Amino acid sequence: MENPLKSFREEQDALGVRNIPKAAYYGIHTARAMDNFAVSGRTVNVHLLHGLITVKKAAAQAHLQLNTYPAAIARAIVQACDELLAGAYREQFTVDAMQGGAGTSANMNVNEVIANRAIELMGGERGDYSRVHPLDHVNCCQSTNDIYPTALRIAAIGLVRRLSQAFASLQEALQEKEHAFADVLKLGRTELMDALPMMAGQGFGAYAKAVARDRWRLYKVEERLREINIGGTAIGTGLNAPVKYTFLMTDILQDLTGYGLARSEYPMDPTQNMDVFAEVSGLLKAASINLLKISGDLRLLASGPVGGLGELELPAVQAGSSIMPGKVNPVMAEMAGLVAMRVIANDTAVTLAAAGGQLELNAFMPLIADALLESLEVLANAVRLFEERCVRGIRICEQRCYERVENSSALAAALIHHIGYEKSAEVAKRASQEGKTVRQVLLEAQLLPEAELDQILNPYQVTKPGVPGK
Amino acid sequence: MENPLKSFREEQDALGVRNIPKAAYYGIHTARAMDNFAVSGRTVNVHLLHGLITVKKAAAQAHLQLNTYPAAIARAIVQACDELLAGAYREQFTVDAMQGGAGTSANMNVNEVIANRAIELMGGERGDYSRVHPLDHVNCCQSTNDIYPTALRIAAIGLVRRLSQAFASLQEALQEKEHAFADVLKLGRTELMDALPMMAGQGFGAYAKAVARDRWRLYKVEERLREINIGGTAIGTGLNAPVKYTFLMTDILQDLTGYGLARSEYPMDPTQNMDVFAEVSGLLKAASINLLKISGDLRLLASGPVGGLGELELPAVQAGSSIMPGKVNPVMAEMAGLVAMRVIANDTAVTLAAAGGQLELNAFMPLIADALLESLEVLANAVRLFEERCVRGIRICEQRCYERVENSSALAAALIHHIGYEKSAEVAKRASQEGKTVRQVLLEAQLLPEAELDQILNPYQVTKPGVPGK
Amino acid sequence: MENPLKSFREEQDALGVRNIPKAAYYGIHTARAMDNFAVSGRTVNVHLLHGLITVKKAAAQAHLQLNTYPAAIARAIVQACDELLAGAYREQFTVDAMQGGAGTSANMNVNEVIANRAIELMGGERGDYSRVHPLDHVNCCQSTNDIYPTALRIAAIGLVRRLSQAFASLQEALQEKEHAFADVLKLGRTELMDALPMMAGQGFGAYAKAVARDRWRLYKVEERLREINIGGTAIGTGLNAPVKYTFLMTDILQDLTGYGLARSEYPMDPTQNMDVFAEVSGLLKAASINLLKISGDLRLLASGPVGGLGELELPAVQAGSSIMPGKVNPVMAEMAGLVAMRVIANDTAVTLAAAGGQLELNAFMPLIADALLESLEVLANAVRLFEERCVRGIRICEQRCYERVENSSALAAALIHHIGYEKSAEVAKRASQEGKTVRQVLLEAQLLPEAELDQILNPYQVTKPGVPGK
Amino acid sequence: MENPLKSFREEQDALGVRNIPKAAYYGIHTARAMDNFAVSGRTVNVHLLHGLITVKKAAAQAHLQLNTYPAAIARAIVQACDELLAGAYREQFTVDAMQGGAGTSANMNVNEVIANRAIELMGGERGDYSRVHPLDHVNCCQSTNDIYPTALRIAAIGLVRRLSQAFASLQEALQEKEHAFADVLKLGRTELMDALPMMAGQGFGAYAKAVARDRWRLYKVEERLREINIGGTAIGTGLNAPVKYTFLMTDILQDLTGYGLARSEYPMDPTQNMDVFAEVSGLLKAASINLLKISGDLRLLASGPVGGLGELELPAVQAGSSIMPGKVNPVMAEMAGLVAMRVIANDTAVTLAAAGGQLELNAFMPLIADALLESLEVLANAVRLFEERCVRGIRICEQRCYERVENSSALAAALIHHIGYEKSAEVAKRASQEGKTVRQVLLEAQLLPEAELDQILNPYQVTKPGVPGK
Repeated sequence: MENPLKSFREEQDALGVRNIPKAAYYGIHTARAMDNFAVSGRTVNVHLLHGLITVKKAAAQAHLQLNTYPAAIARAIVQACDELLAGAYREQFTVDAMQGGAGTSANMNVNEVIANRAIELMGGERGDYSRVHPLDHVNCCQSTNDIYPTALRIAAIGLVRRLSQAFASLQEALQEKEHAFADVLKLGRTELMDALPMMAGQGFGAYAKAVARDRWRLYKVEERLREINIGGTAIGTGLNAPVKYTFLMTDILQDLTGYGLARSEYPMDPTQNMDVFAEVSGLLKAASINLLKISGDLRLLASGPVGGLGELELPAVQAGSSIMPGKVNPVMAEMAGLVAMRVIANDTAVTLAAAGGQLELNAFMPLIADALLESLEVLANAVRLFEERCVRGIRICEQRCYERVENSSALAAALIHHIGYEKSAEVAKRASQEGKTVRQVLLEAQLLPEAELDQILNPYQVTKPGVPGK
Repeated sequence: MENPLKSFREEQDALGVRNIPKAAYYGIHTARAMDNFAVSGRTVNVHLLHGLITVKKAAAQAHLQLNTYPAAIARAIVQACDELLAGAYREQFTVDAMQGGAGTSANMNVNEVIANRAIELMGGERGDYSRVHPLDHVNCCQSTNDIYPTALRIAAIGLVRRLSQAFASLQEALQEKEHAFADVLKLGRTELMDALPMMAGQGFGAYAKAVARDRWRLYKVEERLREINIGGTAIGTGLNAPVKYTFLMTDILQDLTGYGLARSEYPMDPTQNMDVFAEVSGLLKAASINLLKISGDLRLLASGPVGGLGELELPAVQAGSSIMPGKVNPVMAEMAGLVAMRVIANDTAVTLAAAGGQLELNAFMPLIADALLESLEVLANAVRLFEERCVRGIRICEQRCYERVENSSALAAALIHHIGYEKSAEVAKRASQEGKTVRQVLLEAQLLPEAELDQILNPYQVTKPGVPGK
Repeated sequence: MENPLKSFREEQDALGVRNIPKAAYYGIHTARAMDNFAVSGRTVNVHLLHGLITVKKAAAQAHLQLNTYPAAIARAIVQACDELLAGAYREQFTVDAMQGGAGTSANMNVNEVIANRAIELMGGERGDYSRVHPLDHVNCCQSTNDIYPTALRIAAIGLVRRLSQAFASLQEALQEKEHAFADVLKLGRTELMDALPMMAGQGFGAYAKAVARDRWRLYKVEERLREINIGGTAIGTGLNAPVKYTFLMTDILQDLTGYGLARSEYPMDPTQNMDVFAEVSGLLKAASINLLKISGDLRLLASGPVGGLGELELPAVQAGSSIMPGKVNPVMAEMAGLVAMRVIANDTAVTLAAAGGQLELNAFMPLIADALLESLEVLANAVRLFEERCVRGIRICEQRCYERVENSSALAAALIHHIGYEKSAEVAKRASQEGKTVRQVLLEAQLLPEAELDQILNPYQVTKPGVPGK
Repeated sequence: MENPLKSFREEQDALGVRNIPKAAYYGIHTARAMDNFAVSGRTVNVHLLHGLITVKKAAAQAHLQLNTYPAAIARAIVQACDELLAGAYREQFTVDAMQGGAGTSANMNVNEVIANRAIELMGGERGDYSRVHPLDHVNCCQSTNDIYPTALRIAAIGLVRRLSQAFASLQEALQEKEHAFADVLKLGRTELMDALPMMAGQGFGAYAKAVARDRWRLYKVEERLREINIGGTAIGTGLNAPVKYTFLMTDILQDLTGYGLARSEYPMDPTQNMDVFAEVSGLLKAASINLLKISGDLRLLASGPVGGLGELELPAVQAGSSIMPGKVNPVMAEMAGLVAMRVIANDTAVTLAAAGGQLELNAFMPLIADALLESLEVLANAVRLFEERCVRGIRICEQRCYERVENSSALAAALIHHIGYEKSAEVAKRASQEGKTVRQVLLEAQLLPEAELDQILNPYQVTKPGVPGK
């Protein structure tokens, strides 16, 4: 009896004949790519695969309408695509994420798996490409160079939307805290030094504003992602793609994705220029900067409990230490910061790859895809987890916040318009040196009448615009 | 007689007394900063200084209307600012670009120079701050933390507009070439290998599209730069800034700059969040990627004359080599690429600095300012020079372009829809191996009738969408 | 009958009780971390896991000698570690690579899997930590903060050595070509323009030199990786780690790994300072720069066949295009460049994470580990594949190389010492303009006698130091 | 009478005739470069210029020995170089730092200034190159491509040494604090949360260790910088550089610089490969990571005075705020961090430029030079200022440090080996919740006899290796 693991079929390409496992849906082009790019052990991002298969399905539907090849073949391709989109045969997508060749191997892997599944559906045996051919049918009227960027844009739009929703939730959670802590007086710091009093809610309001921008930028960039070079084929000139097919493809892809995709008026541009992906990645970097700032602030404000700022308490989500009993660490905020760093690093990859285009194509698109889609995914997950498991549960140590304002000389700034900068500085210095409050020093020095002082140093007043006491 | 270079006045601050050169318009805060930050030898960017002085002028005008302090002082400050804006006393701005302290030293340098010049204008002696005080008057109702970001945004808007114009010119120059070379048939390359025929003009059109996006993005980002935190003072709460003053400042700054500046509704946000500058820098990075791509392509296409692609000729702007006589190098394209690299590197600085904010302030704003403004400036200059001294003068070697298409097997792609992928590949291979044209091989093999061949292999047809011969 | 997939045991930690799948070897700390860090879907790098398990095994062996706890427990732990090191239960290491908490979750995952397997080996039921406790036994005398950096260093050393061998092979392959092409005259280019003649082998020699440095640097950096903070526990002071244990651990780890590991004399340093990993990553970046340069050159030299430089032929390893029949792309060189870009991007991650340490620890060690180990792995794989499937098989187009030298005016440089720079430039210009060789122009202009010319323009002479003809 | 500012001489190059200001020492090649590269307004780094002039002087001395051209010319060149090295005519070096052309313009600027000054010294008029020719004499036997990397290496070595000394001083200052604070008990933190007790001096010791590595790496990298490609001329083959000249140059350059420079055995390598500069820059990046960590820690530990950690006091070096009287900011630590960020950003520039080499040359050397030399300079200055004005003057708030250890539950970790992890965690939790010390909780719970407790919880014991009380 035949051992299925040791049983092979023969396939052939321009380089010669090669054994392919009989059980495999992929074919010779995939097999060669597996050998050539045994680099990272990670396979192509699943969202990109999904995008590629969606394009293949659209193409088969288009050819069905155009009668390019027999309808039975087109129908089998569509059905194979549907199965794959539902998650079947995932293990057949074996080519490495770090591949040379501008994405040709990812495309061929998809072409071969679809073709072999379609062959099966038509009653044939895997490898019998006379029935359904990976190139002549599945890839008909296409080039890697137009369908790969198209699939990448489709994948990116989906993830951009998901990330945008995550930012919306985070913004909402921050605003919830803005309102909850609206009346908690605390010390504001500049350069980590005691500065002026503020309301704790105001700090969360500032975070929410930044996150609102993150969301807005993602919303706006989608319009540039929507422009696809489908029908441009190898270099954007559109050789071998009939105009009818191209128009049809755009319509069908709109239907299949629900996105407002538009055919590029100048397909040579999106075939070779990758600046749009660099733009998206740059926005993710800006968002990561905000995430680093916010998560870093939370870690700082929650530091302690004894030896830190200790003004906030982050929810405990896991035990903190394998050696220090009872220790709880701000792991969700750290994770958010770590992911932000990863996204910034991925932006370096996108930048280098996008700048590496030459003439009519960019050979490093697989790196752009890998890095950009990872960034979108991990950022969406991290933002969501950070929101749910950290921000939502933050509590404030009201008493400690208040005492610090009382004990600091921060209120001296309110004196400037009353006694001038230099005298105010002197008061602040004495308060600090003698361990007194600003109010005490002022009273002792009889610089201002007590009633006026009450107005000037009213801590709730100093968190609002204007000159207190005037 | 007194030696002016060795003659000093005494000034005092919280740390004590210090000698200041009598001739200096700057004062003790500047002098201490000069000692503390003797780092790079580069002083603060002149556009930032301009922005700061503009804010000071606006504040004096506001206080004149509000009668905050004597009108004579306000008028003297305004006059001093006008002189400085006209370029006077530039050498008095001595603090290093790489300074700690979130910009306080740059602000104090400006405050002191303005105060001392105003004192002079009022008939006093430099250093006699009883007449005009750097803090109580020039800095009245301000904090470094609101006026520095405001000044930086004003500076950035001005440079963004200049850069935008430079991109417009470059786009226009590229489109000029698009039209000039619209009928020159040449070989398109993917992954540097011979691919399909195209028109030389199409390549320039693709570049122009990318540059158009660069321009568009800059146009759109200005709206976020316009939001200023003036009146927020130290942490954005607005302590010591009367509401009337803040409104007035926004109006006056609009007048002085001609930009549609708007008061932030949440000044805490722009005081501590620097993501907008990171966003701008990210767009400059995307533009730099395009610039690297375009300039790299031009260098490649102009390589040779004998041992390279040699399809383009870039204008000679200087002799190329100190040892190889007659050599002319693509120095303008190299300069454009080099500047693009610098801008990408500056984006790293902006990213790190922007992510370095803590709580109510970002201490690293001086690095953001230094890196971002340099990027805007050098990019504008580089794009303009590249356009004028390189792109405008490009000539094409028409004959060589044409011959390459003829001699390559690129046209084999046009056969796919007629004889299938595998036979087409065979034809291409034979053509390449036997040094024949695709047409010759086809004729010899009698695969297609000659008349049909003429249609299919029509090189002008294969640069347009569709299946040639169908 | 019980459904094993829906069957749970209860475990408890400081946060409360939680169901754990009965089949799981991991426990409650792992389960919480899986919830908290559902970020990337990628689990912890297998080399790091291997390092952690090795440390656990060493600790159990040490405690066996020290009689810290019952010998049976120690022996069960050692056996469990051996099974895991052999590859068993890999699917039990479920925590995400992008985790907060400085590696605590990875450590706890390892502690729990080992404990539960040891419990089984002793005849107990998973979850019965009274037999073998993840913390009190498996983690005994350890903190994440000393064993995680130790494990990372062990993992890094192993991969550094593997990478070093890959560079050695690449260097050897390049030198093979240096010798093979030692007599092939070709045109050297500077700034992509025709410059001076050289031997093709010389170019490969220059590549080999660069790769030799890559290798040398890796060799030297190992000494800094060898310094481990084992026994430092939480902050490097060594609380809870008996000195005997620490010394024993170092010896046992040396035995288990075969590396010359040394106990840090100042364990606080490697606990909090991550510059050594940044140093290693920086060296990988330098190596990536060389790889980008070499692979880029090969792609350039192999461009064509008709419309490019076409001086080299890279081995065909897969069909190049899904639309252009017969096209072969330099996919291995592209892959090498792509991986180099990824490594440079990972260096950004390592840099950000390493700079993110605060006080006695760096919370972002998991990112350092993830990025650095990926870089080491993919670079080793890429270099090896590039060497085997690209460099070894390079062939040279000797005739084309030679003709270019003949037809170029590069030889004009040899005239400088004979007729001066300016006249030489004139000759070069005329040769280029009139399509003649330098020799022809010189003969026509009768600037030098023919015999002398033969000496001066001897192309083999001009690839060697000195003034030809003198 | 002739207006010297409007008075010109004519010079000519391959592109034609051009007016040059009569007063200028530079010539037509410089003038064209000034037009072409009006980019940044910054001129070439003075250390690079110094390196170039040193090479020119060495060459003239070599030619004097070799009698290549009249001795009077060589002597005039040497004298001109000496004047320039002493600082004269600095304003004549006018070409922009951001130049295309691989450094040719910087080289020509130097050649022309030297030639014109030498002409003057010989009694001629500037511009009369028949006396001393910028190329035929000053540049004799050289190419930009060998002397530019050589000059860059010379410049780098000098600055590496200076930086190395700055690190030595910083290390010493940190060790001074290590000893001064050796007996000050304080709380160690991991992930910003209270962890274990430590001695304040230990923290400074850990910083000193990191800085020691920074210094060591710089020390070791010099050996790779010492290898120069002098005599390699345009592509490293050495055309036009007699072997005698090359050997002589190496000797003379050793004498002039005092550095152990060595002639590369394979000059093609340093002509085209820039990885050594990337290596140096990578080390500066590693050092910057340490600087960011140390300066960030100091800012954190000195935060407050009321609302922060407040354990350290940094020297006040300038008033902190223009609005908050009495505020003192950690500006020196901030400056150190800011410079570290700049250096990391410059590493991006060096990386991109170094990776941008093609075939026999790297056109982006001017960016490598500009970024690397700036990094070396600003880092040396920043480290020195940080050491002198910050680290040396740090004071510690002993009482506050001690109280925090007392009040924290950090000591619970010492219990693990006595009562197990889980009970220890319970004690820590209760102490934290009830606001008691760990000791109090233990006594109340009667978990351990008091005498044993004294041993176990001895805070000085818990800062040393081992299990307290055992």
